[in-house]
Amino acid sequence: MPLDVHDKIMMMAKRRGFIYPSFEIYGGVAGFYDYGPLGSQLKNNIENIWRKYYLLKDNCVEINTPTVTLYEVLSASGHVEEFTDPTVDCKKCKTSYKVEDIIDKKLTVEQALKEDKVKCPTCGSKLVDPHDVNLMFSTSIGIGDSRKAFLRPETAQGIFTNFHLLYRHAREKLPFGVVQIGKGYRNEVSPRQGTIRLREFNMAEAEVFFDPEDKRHPGFDSVKDKELYLFDNKKETKISLEKAVKNKVINNQALAYYMYITQEFLLSIGVDPKKFRFRKHASDELAHYATECWDAELFSERFGWIECVGIADRSAYDLGAHIESSGTDMYALRKYDEPKIVDAKKVVPKMDRLGPLFKDKAGKIKELLEKTEVKDAKKIFVVLDGKNVEIPADCYEIKQVKEKLFGEKFVPHVIEPSYGIDRILYFVLEHNYVETKKKDEEYTLLKLNPLVAPIKVGVFPLIGDEKLLKVAKEIDDSLRGVGITTYYDDGGTIGRRYARMDEIGTPFCVTVDHDSLKDKKVTVRNRDTTEQERIKIENLVGYFEKVF
Amino acid sequence: MPLDVHDKIMMMAKRRGFIYPSFEIYGGVAGFYDYGPLGSQLKNNIENIWRKYYLLKDNCVEINTPTVTLYEVLSASGHVEEFTDPTVDCKKCKTSYKVEDIIDKKLTVEQALKEDKVKCPTCGSKLVDPHDVNLMFSTSIGIGDSRKAFLRPETAQGIFTNFHLLYRHAREKLPFGVVQIGKGYRNEVSPRQGTIRLREFNMAEAEVFFDPEDKRHPGFDSVKDKELYLFDNKKETKISLEKAVKNKVINNQALAYYMYITQEFLLSIGVDPKKFRFRKHASDELAHYATECWDAELFSERFGWIECVGIADRSAYDLGAHIESSGTDMYALRKYDEPKIVDAKKVVPKMDRLGPLFKDKAGKIKELLEKTEVKDAKKIFVVLDGKNVEIPADCYEIKQVKEKLFGEKFVPHVIEPSYGIDRILYFVLEHNYVETKKKDEEYTLLKLNPLVAPIKVGVFPLIGDEKLLKVAKEIDDSLRGVGITTYYDDGGTIGRRYARMDEIGTPFCVTVDHDSLKDKKVTVRNRDTTEQERIKIENLVGYFEKVF
Repeated sequence: MPLDVHDKIMMMAKRRGFIYPSFEIYGGVAGFYDYGPLGSQLKNNIENIWRKYYLLKDNCVEINTPTVTLYEVLSASGHVEEFTDPTVDCKKCKTSYKVEDIIDKKLTVEQALKEDKVKCPTCGSKLVDPHDVNLMFSTSIGIGDSRKAFLRPETAQGIFTNFHLLYRHAREKLPFGVVQIGKGYRNEVSPRQGTIRLREFNMAEAEVFFDPEDKRHPGFDSVKDKELYLFDNKKETKISLEKAVKNKVINNQALAYYMYITQEFLLSIGVDPKKFRFRKHASDELAHYATECWDAELFSERFGWIECVGIADRSAYDLGAHIESSGTDMYALRKYDEPKIVDAKKVVPKMDRLGPLFKDKAGKIKELLEKTEVKDAKKIFVVLDGKNVEIPADCYEIKQVKEKLFGEKFVPHVIEPSYGIDRILYFVLEHNYVETKKKDEEYTLLKLNPLVAPIKVGVFPLIGDEKLLKVAKEIDDSLRGVGITTYYDDGGTIGRRYARMDEIGTPFCVTVDHDSLKDKKVTVRNRDTTEQERIKIENLVGYFEKVF
Repeated sequence: MPLDVHDKIMMMAKRRGFIYPSFEIYGGVAGFYDYGPLGSQLKNNIENIWRKYYLLKDNCVEINTPTVTLYEVLSASGHVEEFTDPTVDCKKCKTSYKVEDIIDKKLTVEQALKEDKVKCPTCGSKLVDPHDVNLMFSTSIGIGDSRKAFLRPETAQGIFTNFHLLYRHAREKLPFGVVQIGKGYRNEVSPRQGTIRLREFNMAEAEVFFDPEDKRHPGFDSVKDKELYLFDNKKETKISLEKAVKNKVINNQALAYYMYITQEFLLSIGVDPKKFRFRKHASDELAHYATECWDAELFSERFGWIECVGIADRSAYDLGAHIESSGTDMYALRKYDEPKIVDAKKVVPKMDRLGPLFKDKAGKIKELLEKTEVKDAKKIFVVLDGKNVEIPADCYEIKQVKEKLFGEKFVPHVIEPSYGIDRILYFVLEHNYVETKKKDEEYTLLKLNPLVAPIKVGVFPLIGDEKLLKVAKEIDDSLRGVGITTYYDDGGTIGRRYARMDEIGTPFCVTVDHDSLKDKKVTVRNRDTTEQERIKIENLVGYFEKVF
């Protein structure tokens, strides 16, 4: 079988230090990859460009929360129930398979098993026991009286559970956005698609909170005439943001705006526009928390169209769930012009009852009771150390009071652009991988955008003369001094050194030759044009700072 | 009890968005903290300055490996056996305690329990069962036939297990360094020190590989006259790097060099030099993998001297362990001037025996056998899918051959500077927290170094006049456009707005007033001097770019 582009890229990626299979010396495990020196740098560059879009341009703030996540959080968010894959097991060899990987989509799994239409791909035996498998890695916190936890399936929950603090940080004004860049985990049943389907992956997510009655975005007007690349399940079309929202192709400004930001970001890091499109989720595809979702899909020769970014309207789902499960006030306020006086019920705790019953927890319970809202509930519960505790009716009194309301409370809606960094990184490699010939020999290069290229400048002394080495090292230091990543190379012919840099996508090479000692100039060679220019050494830093 | 500095900082940190306790809405869990918007930015700044020292100046490369780590890796590295804390349990309330937290250091745990010198701090009952508890979070990969795994206790193992690939990447020249920045995990028995003792933490580690016969560092000469702040368990002294190495206070150049880099890094991000020192580990303190270790300790009013960086000589421990467990060639080569011809034994696999016995694995085994070194072993094992498999003697032949050797193989030694980012971040806050009075009112400010400050510039229109707002927004955009983080604030008096920025350590504020509309100048106010300067708007970007 001839190698396809994916094979060739993965071979180059391992050889040159972009991507290594994890734990290879112990046999490896599917779904885990390491980023080598060049891969890490490429990933950092992609993430930092992403930050420019979301933090500097869109004024979001970034937070950082643990990957180990308490059971209660993921139970409330629905992941314990819903983050599952239908699975079948082989009776004999005990291998498990994701149903969608091995059973024809036209059949139900029950049909397929009953009619014996599918056998174990490994040993050919009968498959049994179709059941949902939860895809979260589980662990526990502490020794002895430990608490159940999972590795987070998304970074988003760390943002939702801090909403009340972040709302205060945003000085109680909507919309505001919060991002998180970090690891996510999905204990896939049987991952088989290289870096496309990972068990531990890197994500960048933004959760932007809106008033459900106003999903306009302040930046929409400035981009409303730009065009989005949409796919309507039949053909690709281009449509302006304004028209898409007006015609209800896209439900609201906020979704359309973040789709545009996504498109701009992806194209700016070197995704091929001809291999890029947005596709809307059909209703049976939607995640349990979403009301509308658009995927940014990128095209791969081996894998076809693959989701790399999902831009979802999660509505009030998550905040509502956490309010209900934790009892925390995570509402936003739509202010009245004038405060209103209304009738309300208030819980007044009785410490003489709470004290003997709850001992050192009584104070905490008093505090929680005072914050409890009483509507028509007959029983009152508070959340204590993660457990729902019923408070006996003789421990409190309910009083009718007058309350001054400053506005109407509501649960904000969330628009979530969620980026799979590993997939994006792979596609940046695939879309910029070029095979050509040089003097009848195969020659490959990566036409990486200079902004993402892991190495910006190769620095070469023409030959091993001490005087040239010294100048080359000084140039190398001066570029590194201003933050430009370089690769110093004094081995082999210049052609060979160019080739090494072309293969990893380095946009420029600087060569120091004997003339440099006299005219204080060096040769700067451009990867894409292969044109060479003589530049004064003292102007080099300025020359490159303009590009990067 | 009056609040101490730690209390005050943690209150400010929560109120202003540096640090939040994790999972608070579900009762919280000790040992987990979130970084809010300002904390994340501060953390990013600290990590990026660290990168400048290690990647740009010291020429290390960065890699990125999974946090979920295969059992085999951590078994080989000794963590399954050795990464433990002696623990006692309460018979009655089932709480577990770390022995060192509750038992006087002069007693052995057996003595203390036998003589009833210690009771459960929670319920006062008898403590029993002293035993070692492993501190790794455990999980498993896959469904059904799953593989055992842990969350990594350090990022280092991800580097060691890739040594052979990284050595090739470094073109087989020593020394070379590889860094990793990311999460580490330690399932503490009973963490009680705020952000100092975390169960999930952020680390930055460098593993620098040396020839054991040559632990000189190429950068040593340029810093050998600089002084290190050492503590010899009696008093603090200053000593030059050169003298420290010559007098064997520090074992080798490499350790001394990375101690200096550490000192320079910490002081550059605003650690107080009077609250900084290096302390050498006594032999009974050393981790299982270390032969010598220096801690950079920082002083906290509440916690005393705390280890924030460990600079260890791990010798050949880890690479040796992985060579032995995995059978992978992770040696480096000390080249001979001339190749030598020597007698050697070679394993020649017999496919006609291997085939029937190992079926589809036979090819892989053949490959492994050919790489196996035969010394005097009677049995031959290969590592297959993480398991040690014995190969029957009739499956291969051992031949005497002549081999051409190009050099002497050896296991490189590792010098490891390992930084606890969360602790460093906390100390940057504590060492720069200043309480003062303004007009008889308490006034706090953070004298953060401009390089680490999360917000670089506050941008204020003097009053709510549309014309001023417009100019202020334009300035805000232009600064963000060049990557300078800003905080736009048009609420409250100017004094109040300065105070908000002082409290979070913003070094500069820019105020747009009515004169600005005429003279195109704005007032730039310096946090530390409170001096004000009028600067031309068109020169602002340049003015700040010089500082940051």
